[in-house]
Amino acid sequence: MKNTDFFDIKSLLTEEHKLFIDSLSDFVDIEILPVIEEHFLEGTYPSELTLKLAELGIFGITIPQEYGGAGADYLMYGLAMQELERGDSAIRSFASVQSSLVMYPIYKYGSENQKNKWLPKLASAESIGCFGLTEPDFGSNPAGMLTNAVKTRSGYLLNGAKMWITNGTLADIAIVWAKLDGIVHGFLVEKGTPGFSAPEMKGKHSLRASVTSELIFQDCEIPEENILNISGLKGPLSCLTQARYGIAWGAVGAAIAVYESAVEYSKTRIQFGKPIGAFQLVQEKLAYMLTEISKAQLINFRLAQLMDGGNATPQHVSFAKRNNVRMALDCARIAREIHGANGILSEYPVMRHAANLESVLTYEGTHDIHTLILGQHITGIAAYE
Amino acid sequence: MKNTDFFDIKSLLTEEHKLFIDSLSDFVDIEILPVIEEHFLEGTYPSELTLKLAELGIFGITIPQEYGGAGADYLMYGLAMQELERGDSAIRSFASVQSSLVMYPIYKYGSENQKNKWLPKLASAESIGCFGLTEPDFGSNPAGMLTNAVKTRSGYLLNGAKMWITNGTLADIAIVWAKLDGIVHGFLVEKGTPGFSAPEMKGKHSLRASVTSELIFQDCEIPEENILNISGLKGPLSCLTQARYGIAWGAVGAAIAVYESAVEYSKTRIQFGKPIGAFQLVQEKLAYMLTEISKAQLINFRLAQLMDGGNATPQHVSFAKRNNVRMALDCARIAREIHGANGILSEYPVMRHAANLESVLTYEGTHDIHTLILGQHITGIAAYE
Amino acid sequence: MKNTDFFDIKSLLTEEHKLFIDSLSDFVDIEILPVIEEHFLEGTYPSELTLKLAELGIFGITIPQEYGGAGADYLMYGLAMQELERGDSAIRSFASVQSSLVMYPIYKYGSENQKNKWLPKLASAESIGCFGLTEPDFGSNPAGMLTNAVKTRSGYLLNGAKMWITNGTLADIAIVWAKLDGIVHGFLVEKGTPGFSAPEMKGKHSLRASVTSELIFQDCEIPEENILNISGLKGPLSCLTQARYGIAWGAVGAAIAVYESAVEYSKTRIQFGKPIGAFQLVQEKLAYMLTEISKAQLINFRLAQLMDGGNATPQHVSFAKRNNVRMALDCARIAREIHGANGILSEYPVMRHAANLESVLTYEGTHDIHTLILGQHITGIAAYE
Amino acid sequence: MKNTDFFDIKSLLTEEHKLFIDSLSDFVDIEILPVIEEHFLEGTYPSELTLKLAELGIFGITIPQEYGGAGADYLMYGLAMQELERGDSAIRSFASVQSSLVMYPIYKYGSENQKNKWLPKLASAESIGCFGLTEPDFGSNPAGMLTNAVKTRSGYLLNGAKMWITNGTLADIAIVWAKLDGIVHGFLVEKGTPGFSAPEMKGKHSLRASVTSELIFQDCEIPEENILNISGLKGPLSCLTQARYGIAWGAVGAAIAVYESAVEYSKTRIQFGKPIGAFQLVQEKLAYMLTEISKAQLINFRLAQLMDGGNATPQHVSFAKRNNVRMALDCARIAREIHGANGILSEYPVMRHAANLESVLTYEGTHDIHTLILGQHITGIAAYE
Repeated sequence: MKNTDFFDIKSLLTEEHKLFIDSLSDFVDIEILPVIEEHFLEGTYPSELTLKLAELGIFGITIPQEYGGAGADYLMYGLAMQELERGDSAIRSFASVQSSLVMYPIYKYGSENQKNKWLPKLASAESIGCFGLTEPDFGSNPAGMLTNAVKTRSGYLLNGAKMWITNGTLADIAIVWAKLDGIVHGFLVEKGTPGFSAPEMKGKHSLRASVTSELIFQDCEIPEENILNISGLKGPLSCLTQARYGIAWGAVGAAIAVYESAVEYSKTRIQFGKPIGAFQLVQEKLAYMLTEISKAQLINFRLAQLMDGGNATPQHVSFAKRNNVRMALDCARIAREIHGANGILSEYPVMRHAANLESVLTYEGTHDIHTLILGQHITGIAAYE
Repeated sequence: MKNTDFFDIKSLLTEEHKLFIDSLSDFVDIEILPVIEEHFLEGTYPSELTLKLAELGIFGITIPQEYGGAGADYLMYGLAMQELERGDSAIRSFASVQSSLVMYPIYKYGSENQKNKWLPKLASAESIGCFGLTEPDFGSNPAGMLTNAVKTRSGYLLNGAKMWITNGTLADIAIVWAKLDGIVHGFLVEKGTPGFSAPEMKGKHSLRASVTSELIFQDCEIPEENILNISGLKGPLSCLTQARYGIAWGAVGAAIAVYESAVEYSKTRIQFGKPIGAFQLVQEKLAYMLTEISKAQLINFRLAQLMDGGNATPQHVSFAKRNNVRMALDCARIAREIHGANGILSEYPVMRHAANLESVLTYEGTHDIHTLILGQHITGIAAYE
Repeated sequence: MKNTDFFDIKSLLTEEHKLFIDSLSDFVDIEILPVIEEHFLEGTYPSELTLKLAELGIFGITIPQEYGGAGADYLMYGLAMQELERGDSAIRSFASVQSSLVMYPIYKYGSENQKNKWLPKLASAESIGCFGLTEPDFGSNPAGMLTNAVKTRSGYLLNGAKMWITNGTLADIAIVWAKLDGIVHGFLVEKGTPGFSAPEMKGKHSLRASVTSELIFQDCEIPEENILNISGLKGPLSCLTQARYGIAWGAVGAAIAVYESAVEYSKTRIQFGKPIGAFQLVQEKLAYMLTEISKAQLINFRLAQLMDGGNATPQHVSFAKRNNVRMALDCARIAREIHGANGILSEYPVMRHAANLESVLTYEGTHDIHTLILGQHITGIAAYE
Repeated sequence: MKNTDFFDIKSLLTEEHKLFIDSLSDFVDIEILPVIEEHFLEGTYPSELTLKLAELGIFGITIPQEYGGAGADYLMYGLAMQELERGDSAIRSFASVQSSLVMYPIYKYGSENQKNKWLPKLASAESIGCFGLTEPDFGSNPAGMLTNAVKTRSGYLLNGAKMWITNGTLADIAIVWAKLDGIVHGFLVEKGTPGFSAPEMKGKHSLRASVTSELIFQDCEIPEENILNISGLKGPLSCLTQARYGIAWGAVGAAIAVYESAVEYSKTRIQFGKPIGAFQLVQEKLAYMLTEISKAQLINFRLAQLMDGGNATPQHVSFAKRNNVRMALDCARIAREIHGANGILSEYPVMRHAANLESVLTYEGTHDIHTLILGQHITGIAAYE
């Protein structure tokens, strides 16, 4: 790691980790950072990056190589997400969806046919996927979903609507969760299936370099073989655990980006005859950021150990997602303030990250929902309702 | 006041105040709110509003009627800024610049000729003004300014550059502060004067519905009669006190906008079978916002009394600007969170206000500078350097 | 007011207010401050102050003079509580109980006989009273109280226990709330009544200069004429509104005490060759405190206007109690930190106030309960349960 | 570890660590907790614990066995301090002083004679030590110390005064830092040396179960052989790094104590018909505490690795001390609030820990000083003065 690393976590990595991350870090510096601000302002996804990310092995990083994945460990996955989100939360979101929300459920709950058909193409980005769980009226409470599947002679008839679906409009394949006889099941819905449309959502102030869509199903017929072999909410929730793990790491990357910009600015911006980094009020802000980032890094490293050892629980992941995203958002706001008037300009990454992290704070379990997940873990009492 | 008013401040207003504010409130609802989000996203100033604001008497609201102003009291001025910023900080900024940073110094430090020439046209918005104090390397420390005036036979030769100038590109007249023999003086620089240009700044993430510019002076010759009759930094600082007063009120308007949106959303958004406003974690956020807004309203009302009685000090104004803008920014962030995923959309005013308030926190004395102004007031010791 | 008054609230007072407060302020400086720290450390109430407070007219300050009260307005009451708690929260608690929780209900709900018998003696401190509402298992939810009254031929038989009763052991008369046929009623229980005991609670870390007691009723017989003329929880709640009003003011007094100590310390304590008040990190703390105290003062002044005009609601009072006590506690903690190592010593008032305010935060509606009262006010939805 | 361990740090310990900590944990439960509250209220040190702590091997835990120490690693040292401060900060302070501030400098900078004479007796608690660095006017800036040593024929003549010296009055041996020819040196001053007195400081609100003293030197003659072999401020600072390391761990112990009390209380205290742990506002507080404690545990574990590997810097230790003590204090305050009115009683450990941690926040580098140490680390600019 070439970036912020107060506790020398680098010394705990293998050479393989270090090589991969260094090359990904270069990719972020060379390919993402020079173009991302413009994409954010314009509200466009930098589609030229997709294949390059695939070549780096980002998609399906923990999926076995036989299916086209990189077969890496969770530590590698985490480090990769951190680097990508140092670039932009939209790019990391793209990777999270493709890997954790599309490839993971196919790998975990798919038939051999489904795996062979989709995983290699998703790994190479020949195909792009999306994940349809959230509905307009069911965000924090997916159990209430209205999207419905009915068994037909040759498959299933899908009706309903999903919202806030990253990559929906771009996707060749959508993992869609719907109730079949009242029980949640997952379906593979291919682009072009009659009755399926995925219009893009507009007017976003956040993740503007990402495509966000609705998914609409009107008597959309899905073939029999396109159902996943899992029933109940534990299916989608297991995917969310995977994705949240990546988010917990990614958020730290965003925090590093804004922190390093703030440090650099503090050392070079002169007011009252000295660098503003010489003022106690600025040092306090920098110390706050370094402290919070470093703790988040320790969380992530420990979480990776638990994941790789098979000992991580969804509560561990909730803890990390909740803490790290709030932390990153706080850092982005503080870094913005340190940059003074310049902090509102696209020359500096701070407002872009701050805006993006508003989405990251909310998606895949809002901050408050993760608070209540921890509260239940502590007290044994559910307090969601 | 039709909006948030926990402590019934309305009952402390005159009929005149109430009538004016109610009509301005309608104006905000009808003229500003339906168009502002689009202007923000596009990065354009809604120029069709300018004349309408003039007709409402917004520009030069405290300037005597003989010069085209409304001759109102500071309480009226404050209430007006609150309503306007309930619309958008950019619109309030426009009004602040025109009234407090352009008309005020001409009224206060201008010759009778200058007053007669400019004040009526500024009040009617026939002319637009801007205020050039901040320089690229001198934000919090304007005493260090490099812009320079040299006495010539027939006037002054101006050289230098200003930055972060609201309305610069639009302005017919710029109040420019420059050092003459080492002492700060104010000059009226008219649009089209050779050697003067005012290119717009691009790439802003904040106040996107406002025009922000650089002012560039290259051997720009100013006629003798265009100098203001004030010397030293107290000239521009007295203007800032006026403007900050309006900002302190305006910020509360922004806070009211986001709070009311959050309350409405909390009552209508259903999760887990009930309005999210029924959850303790949401009520806590709403209670926080109402508390902080109400206190800011009490500050503003008391400050208006002190202003109208001639007893307000710059420290009183610093107190209010510092407290109220930070408060409004906090409320915008919290309101954003309450809106969940919907909070990132342009359907709701929350991210726009949050983004705008980043500028408002920084301009006219950053939060930290006002902290140190209060610190000096308390301890008698200056700690800026 | 001789103390912290950033917004010159003194100028809004009458001469009568000012004279009274100045003399009370002297009393605090001369009679309370020199002895209070020792009483706190020893855990004793400074009983020698009681009669002096009565002579100053503190007890029953808003009760008409015909009953021995001072017949003053609520502004005067508030100002007095502020001064007293600048001394110590225990002294102000004593006054709150005597005035708002004992004299007020007798005045409001008592028979003419009850009023004539008790009010003059309570005003002169010939008698001391206490207020028994809270029970061991019913703090935030007094509606659940178990204390029970049964009608007998000649009166009522009381059974049950109360806890956290300020002045219980000292009291000549206890206002006790108990359920009669399932409905809450108030009873006057005189010291020495068979079956009534009031042992003191020990082991307190807070309000150590106050007597806190249990009240125990075992087949305690109360004469017919000792019932108050009010039924339902609105009786005790109306008393709490009175007391909370005084607490809202009192807390500001505690905050002023710790703030002024911190300012003085900051100006005189030298480190690194200058007063610590010259450091930005200290100025930030002082600015925070001054800001929060000044806002609380504005709340209190407005609240007094609403009370005196008959326009205050219980929600207004909850707002002020909630905000001001938390504020005072925060100030006490920050002031403690500014005092460095010296801040743990009894030479400075900071830890004593901080410890006391823990009780004040909790009693008469915890901070969270008042949050939910405001939340209900905002959303129309009760979220206590 | 039998206590709070969200990230299963126990699984990273050796059997030796676990056995030791479990037995120490029992000691805390059996020997410290039943008596400590009474000692706190009375302001007395529980001297009966000293020998038992020695028997457990607490004093000089990292000092080689040849000198009577336990020869354990820093991880063991940290775990031990965590357990002890779960009991009380005063007990941990006693151990910190004896081990890190007395035995460490003798071991590190002492002659073989000094080591042989003192270390075994200090390890067995036959002798007690103290550390004299801070002076009344030099807390955060020890370089300014006034205590002075002058070379005499047979040794050194010491004059000056120290303050805030834990165990000063109890100590058989004081490590005293004084300027000799303007350079800081360390001296061993034995109890009973003429001209040396160590009166106890009274009136403390914090660490009341600890003895805190002044050290006074009036022409106090020290033999030649009692000087340590180190010159300059780096001598005492190296000791502070050792002690701060233990504090960083200890603070987590205090936080665990208050957190576990709050969890237990939340599950058993019923209001509105359910355990208060079922309320969202309580779950939020518990989640906050668990989050902050768990991060502090990860910091400490990583710091122990760096210490044991010889890779820890003073900045790493500052980071941990600053973060963890503030965290513990915040937890104690929040836990106090969760306990409601009961939280002010000595039945629960919360106010005692909160009061103690005020000292811990301040001593061995205040929170703000550690902020500036980190600020300097980040920016390369010192901003202390």
